[in-house]
Amino acid sequence: MAETVPGLLREIATVGTDPTRGGYSRPVWSDAELTLREWFVDHAGRRGLDVETDRNGIIWAWWNPTGAPLVDGVVTGSHLDSVPGGGAFDGPLGVASALAAVDRLRARGVRPSRPLGLAVFPEEEGSRFGIACLGSRLLAGSIAPERAAALTDPDGVSFAEAAARHGLDPHHIGPDRQVLDRIGVFLELHVEQGRGLIDLGRPVAIGTSILGHGRWRLTVTGEGNHAGTTLMTDRHDPMVAAGAIITAVRDVAAAVPDARATVGRVAPVPGGTNVIASTVHIWLDVRHPSDAVTADVVRTIHERAQDIAAAEGCAVDLVEESLSPTAHFDAALRDRLSGVLPDAPLLATGAGHDAGVLSTHLPTGMLFVRNPTGVSHAPGEHVEDVDADAGADALADALRDLLGDPA
Amino acid sequence: MAETVPGLLREIATVGTDPTRGGYSRPVWSDAELTLREWFVDHAGRRGLDVETDRNGIIWAWWNPTGAPLVDGVVTGSHLDSVPGGGAFDGPLGVASALAAVDRLRARGVRPSRPLGLAVFPEEEGSRFGIACLGSRLLAGSIAPERAAALTDPDGVSFAEAAARHGLDPHHIGPDRQVLDRIGVFLELHVEQGRGLIDLGRPVAIGTSILGHGRWRLTVTGEGNHAGTTLMTDRHDPMVAAGAIITAVRDVAAAVPDARATVGRVAPVPGGTNVIASTVHIWLDVRHPSDAVTADVVRTIHERAQDIAAAEGCAVDLVEESLSPTAHFDAALRDRLSGVLPDAPLLATGAGHDAGVLSTHLPTGMLFVRNPTGVSHAPGEHVEDVDADAGADALADALRDLLGDPA
Repeated sequence: MAETVPGLLREIATVGTDPTRGGYSRPVWSDAELTLREWFVDHAGRRGLDVETDRNGIIWAWWNPTGAPLVDGVVTGSHLDSVPGGGAFDGPLGVASALAAVDRLRARGVRPSRPLGLAVFPEEEGSRFGIACLGSRLLAGSIAPERAAALTDPDGVSFAEAAARHGLDPHHIGPDRQVLDRIGVFLELHVEQGRGLIDLGRPVAIGTSILGHGRWRLTVTGEGNHAGTTLMTDRHDPMVAAGAIITAVRDVAAAVPDARATVGRVAPVPGGTNVIASTVHIWLDVRHPSDAVTADVVRTIHERAQDIAAAEGCAVDLVEESLSPTAHFDAALRDRLSGVLPDAPLLATGAGHDAGVLSTHLPTGMLFVRNPTGVSHAPGEHVEDVDADAGADALADALRDLLGDPA
Repeated sequence: MAETVPGLLREIATVGTDPTRGGYSRPVWSDAELTLREWFVDHAGRRGLDVETDRNGIIWAWWNPTGAPLVDGVVTGSHLDSVPGGGAFDGPLGVASALAAVDRLRARGVRPSRPLGLAVFPEEEGSRFGIACLGSRLLAGSIAPERAAALTDPDGVSFAEAAARHGLDPHHIGPDRQVLDRIGVFLELHVEQGRGLIDLGRPVAIGTSILGHGRWRLTVTGEGNHAGTTLMTDRHDPMVAAGAIITAVRDVAAAVPDARATVGRVAPVPGGTNVIASTVHIWLDVRHPSDAVTADVVRTIHERAQDIAAAEGCAVDLVEESLSPTAHFDAALRDRLSGVLPDAPLLATGAGHDAGVLSTHLPTGMLFVRNPTGVSHAPGEHVEDVDADAGADALADALRDLLGDPA
């Protein structure tokens, strides 16, 4: 029953397609993401893996044929949720490759004496509750459970409510030493989100680091009123201030080498065409290799935003939603992977991952698979079939080595 | 069973409250708006009125005790839908006042020999399908039925689908001569949406005209990509262009005396925090007493938007969603109302109304009731109880006169 990665992905190709945005919209615990979870659990069951969902909603599937104690395992996996209108590979490629790697190891007669775990993390994109890698952050204790519980989605549903609806006890989310202790090493395979492997002409790379990044929310408040009856001179329109702030975000980042600052989500309240908004929420994503520079960029943006808002008779408030320092993957693991995969170049990434969150707690590494468009978080993201299988081959080789199985 | 207007409004005070935005969100055919429709139908039934919903979703309740032919009636009414996070009075005040006016006429022993109609128009705010006064526009033939049918709400549901779900035949929406012929004169009572009556120190005014206004949609297209992996110099970010366009909208309008231009609704696609948008939709509301100036303002905004988009490597497209020339209410009717209500000042308004749409087809007029905050399309909108009943008194007096009943 060795399946190819493209074959596995074809099984879910129609789940969560987004007719408006194109691509896929699979927010955590949506019908689409739940269907993908069932698909994973079904495949894990067919492979005889022991499946459980932990108290943070992470699914674990263990292959432990020798009945070794469930500690210090070799773990691989990724996520199944997507950004709105995302691609087919961001997340599911790593999960499908994990299943395919198990098949490959079996086909090669590997019988691990150390537990091999497959993991599926919830809310990696943060597209529903606003904080990326929420599952791994909760597991690792990088976010206070009370804060996570109180996060709300665009419909006002709290993470606590949503978690309870999907079988979790919201009073028992949070750091889980027992589960963490089961992971001796974590290796995540992911589609590349840039053009590095195109330029290098290789199908698979070994990750070195994740650019530091964070999310902030700027809330601009003014005075809501009627669009027809309120004179231009009588207005305190937070949307006008928001417009100027959005261009300032770009200008500030463009002036700092290697900095990236993005506004991809804006929500005027109430949001009617014939209504001057009373409040506008602006979500801000900022990244830089130096965490001090990231902080500087955010501080400068906040100052500029305050000046802009004041000039419109509005006010602005800045709240940090999440912040991840630049994560360097374990050097010994990286060298070991290079030994197993001598043709794979080393590559840094600007995108956040659960592997980055876990990297401060245990040895983690990543494998990237070539994306011939270089496009990410959009329908144009792609992976050629041959590269997808090359990725699974590389993952199987690396896992075999980490399991201590003689090659 | 004569009921006060505040008493009637208290019955619906908890329907469609919006915990996020404050105030009320009652889009057409939402649970809240359907509840309000039932409330109206129940009240009409209790008053022995003949109720029917026409093929455009307008509810009609006729008081015709002499069995006169159903043509050339005296009609009053308003709407029950709201903007997102709107006030309690915009729409419902006119409907409640219509019911209260029937009670007052009955209490005074009036038995109309000419049909008296109460009307509830759907989608007056355009907050679900984007075009204001959609019900009256369809009735009057001011919008092509095919175009209305294809309008979609933010969830992608078309007007045709929604209409079918709520008992209409989407193939039979559109101009309805028979229904129009039933209206000899239309008088709409509405909460004032500005500060005119505060300054004049009066509770009720007679409307003279509605400022010309329209809605346009600017669609800015760029290149969607990952917020972390895409360098600032490699971006064609339509959100950055949208920010500059929003400030340009204000600058253009501020330079033209009496012009108003507003962006109250913006939707980046896909709308993820860690995603550079591929497209941003900007809704534009422009108003001016001179229709030629309105056209000029829109043209200037479009030119500025094209320059801004080009500088970002983006493109921008402008589509007119609706346009209403400045509407002058029937002069003879206005003078007649002034005769009945000698203390009521004359007042123009910057807000659109179904009465404005109908004004090009038949004699229409409006009554405005004082709003002590001057705030509209926001929770702060208000009407004092005593003013609400003064409005219903004025409406009853006006209807009695129009019905030809000797005072």
